[in-house]
Amino acid sequence: MTNENTKAGYGDESPIAAFATTPGNSALTLIRCSGKNSIELISSVFLSAKGKDASQFIETAGNTIVHGWIISAGEKIDEVLVSVFRAPKSYTGEDSLDICCHGGGAAGNAVMNIIKNAGFRDALPGEFTFRSFMNGKIDLTRSESVMELVSAKTDLGRRHAVSRLGGSLEKEINELKNMLVQVLAAAEIFLDYSEDEISADSDEEKAGRLPKREVAMDVLKRLKELAASWHLERIYQEGITLVIAGPPNAGKSSLFNSLLKEDRSIVTEVPGTTRDWIEAFVSIEGIPVRLIDTAGLRDSADSVEKIGIERSRKLLEEADLVLYLLNEDEINNKNTSCLSEYLYIWNKCDISPLPKPFPIQNINPISVSAKTGEGLKELYTEIISAINKQTADLKSNDRFSSASVGTVRQKKLVDAACIALEEAFALEENEEPLDLIAPLLRYAVNSLGEITGEVSTADILEEMFSRFCVGK
Amino acid sequence: MTNENTKAGYGDESPIAAFATTPGNSALTLIRCSGKNSIELISSVFLSAKGKDASQFIETAGNTIVHGWIISAGEKIDEVLVSVFRAPKSYTGEDSLDICCHGGGAAGNAVMNIIKNAGFRDALPGEFTFRSFMNGKIDLTRSESVMELVSAKTDLGRRHAVSRLGGSLEKEINELKNMLVQVLAAAEIFLDYSEDEISADSDEEKAGRLPKREVAMDVLKRLKELAASWHLERIYQEGITLVIAGPPNAGKSSLFNSLLKEDRSIVTEVPGTTRDWIEAFVSIEGIPVRLIDTAGLRDSADSVEKIGIERSRKLLEEADLVLYLLNEDEINNKNTSCLSEYLYIWNKCDISPLPKPFPIQNINPISVSAKTGEGLKELYTEIISAINKQTADLKSNDRFSSASVGTVRQKKLVDAACIALEEAFALEENEEPLDLIAPLLRYAVNSLGEITGEVSTADILEEMFSRFCVGK
Repeated sequence: MTNENTKAGYGDESPIAAFATTPGNSALTLIRCSGKNSIELISSVFLSAKGKDASQFIETAGNTIVHGWIISAGEKIDEVLVSVFRAPKSYTGEDSLDICCHGGGAAGNAVMNIIKNAGFRDALPGEFTFRSFMNGKIDLTRSESVMELVSAKTDLGRRHAVSRLGGSLEKEINELKNMLVQVLAAAEIFLDYSEDEISADSDEEKAGRLPKREVAMDVLKRLKELAASWHLERIYQEGITLVIAGPPNAGKSSLFNSLLKEDRSIVTEVPGTTRDWIEAFVSIEGIPVRLIDTAGLRDSADSVEKIGIERSRKLLEEADLVLYLLNEDEINNKNTSCLSEYLYIWNKCDISPLPKPFPIQNINPISVSAKTGEGLKELYTEIISAINKQTADLKSNDRFSSASVGTVRQKKLVDAACIALEEAFALEENEEPLDLIAPLLRYAVNSLGEITGEVSTADILEEMFSRFCVGK
Repeated sequence: MTNENTKAGYGDESPIAAFATTPGNSALTLIRCSGKNSIELISSVFLSAKGKDASQFIETAGNTIVHGWIISAGEKIDEVLVSVFRAPKSYTGEDSLDICCHGGGAAGNAVMNIIKNAGFRDALPGEFTFRSFMNGKIDLTRSESVMELVSAKTDLGRRHAVSRLGGSLEKEINELKNMLVQVLAAAEIFLDYSEDEISADSDEEKAGRLPKREVAMDVLKRLKELAASWHLERIYQEGITLVIAGPPNAGKSSLFNSLLKEDRSIVTEVPGTTRDWIEAFVSIEGIPVRLIDTAGLRDSADSVEKIGIERSRKLLEEADLVLYLLNEDEINNKNTSCLSEYLYIWNKCDISPLPKPFPIQNINPISVSAKTGEGLKELYTEIISAINKQTADLKSNDRFSSASVGTVRQKKLVDAACIALEEAFALEENEEPLDLIAPLLRYAVNSLGEITGEVSTADILEEMFSRFCVGK
C-alpha cells in the first residue's frame, strides 16, 4: 500500500505531501504534493466533479485546475480543487499537485490520511525547496530567500527578500565570480608558460604581478559592500529591541498597549503565556521593533521575584532602546542614572504634572498620559527619531537596486572570499610568486560558488534545508 | 482609490477579496478574489513570469494557473501562482481568482494591499458562499454544510457535513417537497371543482377527505426521521462535555494531560490563557469530547476564590460526564454524594493503594496513577463505555446513507412542516373542509422550500451568511 520501507531523506524522488497553510478556523487548507507518480497516485483517490474517470485525470494538462472529490472506498471525503503541475513546470521541477481542501482541520486531516495511504510520505522541512534547488529551478540564494520571505516581519524585510527571490544576489555573485574566473584564467596562463615567454609589454606585467589586477580590485570592493549590507539586513530581519521599564505602578502596561494602538501595523503579537513579560512586534519606519513590557517582572526582595529582577536586568542589557517611566517615588529615591540609549517618560501627567525644572540633572522626560493619550504623539516621534539615529548610517548605504546578503551563511562565504582576495593582494605586495597567489583566487571563486550552490555538499544542503518550515 | 463610495453589502457584484487561509508561519497564504472585472483588475497588478503582457493574462482560459509576480509601480511585491476561474465555472459563479502568495504574513499583507488599491474591497463573512447561492451554484443546505465542514471537530462530524455538501439533504427535501406538491395539487383539483363533479368512485374519496393521503403520511414520517437526526447531529457538532473535578492536589491536571496523551487524535486545544480552567477537544469513538480541567478553580473561603467555586459548580452542571477524583481527605470528610453521571477515580494509586472495600457506599472508584500510567487504559475504556451509553440509542438510528439536518435553522423548518402536516391530519380527522386543510399543506411546502433557499428573503440570507467566516 505505501512506501514504509523507503527511507525518508532529502534527495530521493518519492512522493511527498505536506500542509502548506496553517491549520485553523480558515476557509481553506492547502496540501502540497510532489514527486514520482504523484499525479497517478492522486488520481487513484480522486473523483472528478464531471464524473470523468481516473485515466482522464492522468492526462490532465499541466497548470490546470480540476474540480472534484477526494474519495476513499467510494465515500466522498472532501470536495476539492486540485491544481496539476507537470515536470519541469512546477515549483519542485517534478510532477506536483496542490490540493485545496475545506479549512478547519477535520477535512484537511481526512484528506491527508487518504493521500498518505495512497503512497505519499510526510515532506521533510524545506524538502519542496530542496527539490527545486536539486532540479536546477532556483539557486541557493533564492532558496534561502523563500524562508526569509516567509519569516519577514516588516515590509522592508519582505522587499529585500523578494529582491533576492528575484535573483538580485544570485546575479551579483555570478558576475563577481565570472570576473574572478577571468583573473584566475589570466593567472594560469602565466603559470602554464614560463615568464620569459610572455611579452614584457603586457599590461599585467606593467601593473604588477597579478594579471587583471583592476578586475580583482573591483571584485573585492563589491564583495566588501555586500558584506556591509548584512548589518542593516539583520536589523530588517531580527529588529530592534525596545524595552519599557520603570518602577511598579508607573503605568508600563498601559503605555505598552497605547503604543500598540498608535501603531497600526502590528505584525505579530506573542502573548506572554509562558513568559513573565509581554512582547509584540511593531513596524516603525520599516524596521521591526520588538516591544517588551516588563510589567510582569516584579522588583522585590522575595526569592521568586529576585528572578524577575535578574530577567529585567538582562532584558535592559539586550535592549537597543529603553523607555524608562519615572514617577515621584523615583525622583525621591534619586536612584535613576542617565544613560544615552534611554528615553525618559513622565507618565500619568493627567494626575500629576511634570515638575519643571526636572529635579534630576540631565534628564528631560517626555510628559505623557497613557490614559488620556496626551503626549503620545510626541513620544512616538521621539521613538522614531531614536530608531532612525541608530539606523541612519546604515540606511544611507541601502540601495534597493543593489544586492544584499540575507543569511549568516552567505555573509560568512562573502567574508571568506574577501579574506582570500586580501591575502592574495598581500602576497602580491610581497612579490610572492603567482603559484602561491592562484590557490587563493581559486578559494575565493569556490566560496562564491558555494553561495549560489554551484559548489555544495550533501551535508551542507541537508543542514540548510532542514531549518526551513514543512511545506516549503 | 477606487470603490470607496460603493456601499459594501451582500448582493452586489463588486470585486471582493479575503484571506482564505489562517495567517501564520506557513509556507503559503491564499487570497480569494471574486466579482465583476476581477480578472482585469488583477491583470493590472500582475507580471507573468514569461514576461507576457497584461492583455494576454486577460485572455487566460478558465481553470488554469499562471505563474508570475504581483507588482506595484514596477516593483515586484511577491512571486505568486494565480488560479483563474471564468464565470460560471467558479465557486461563486463569477469570474474569480485564487492568489497563492508566500506565507508568514508580510508577503500576504503586501499583496492584499495592492489588490485593494486595485479596486477590491474586503469580503464580508460568508460572502463568497452567498454569491455561490445567489448564482444558483448551490442551495442553502449545501451552503450551510460548507461552514459545518470548516468547523467539524471530528471525522464523523466531517462525514455528515460532506454528505450534505454532496446534496444528500437537498435531495431528500426536494423529494419530500415534490411529494407534498402532488398532494396539494390533487387537493386543489377538489377545490376547483365542486364535489359532486368528482366521481364518488375515486380512490381519494374512498380513503377519506385528503387526496393522496398515503403520500402525505409518508412525507410526515420521513420529516419526523429528519427532525430526529438533529439530536445526534448536534452531539457530532458540539460534542460531549467531560469535566475533571475533585479536591485540590488530587492530581486533576496530571490526569487531564494523561488523557490528552492517551488519545492521539486531539483536534483542537484551547490554552487556558483567559480562563481559569483548561479545555481541549479530543475525539472519542467519533464523538468530539470537550475535556475540561477545573484545576485552576480553587476551593477556599477567599472572596476571589469563591468565584472559582461558583464556576466549578456551573461547569459540573453543564457536564455530560464528570471524572471525580477522590483522595483520603475526601473519604474522611465523606462529603461526596453519588451521582449516576460521575465516574469516580482513585488517583495516585502508586503512592496510596485504593482502600478495599471502599468506605463510601455505592462508589467503586477506578484505581489509576496519572504518574505511572497504571489503570489509565481501564479508565479510558470506562469513559468510552459511558459515552457510548449516552449515544447508543442515538447511534442506532444513524444511517450514513440517509439524510440528516445540520443546523438549527433546518431543524426548525422541518419541525414547522411537521406541525403543519399534523394539523392538516387533525382537521381531516374532524372532517373539516379541504379549503381549510390546503393552506396547511401550502405552509409545509413553503417551509421545505425555505430549507433549500428556494423560498427566501434577503434578511434571512444576510443573517445566515454573516455567521460564516471571512473567506468562505
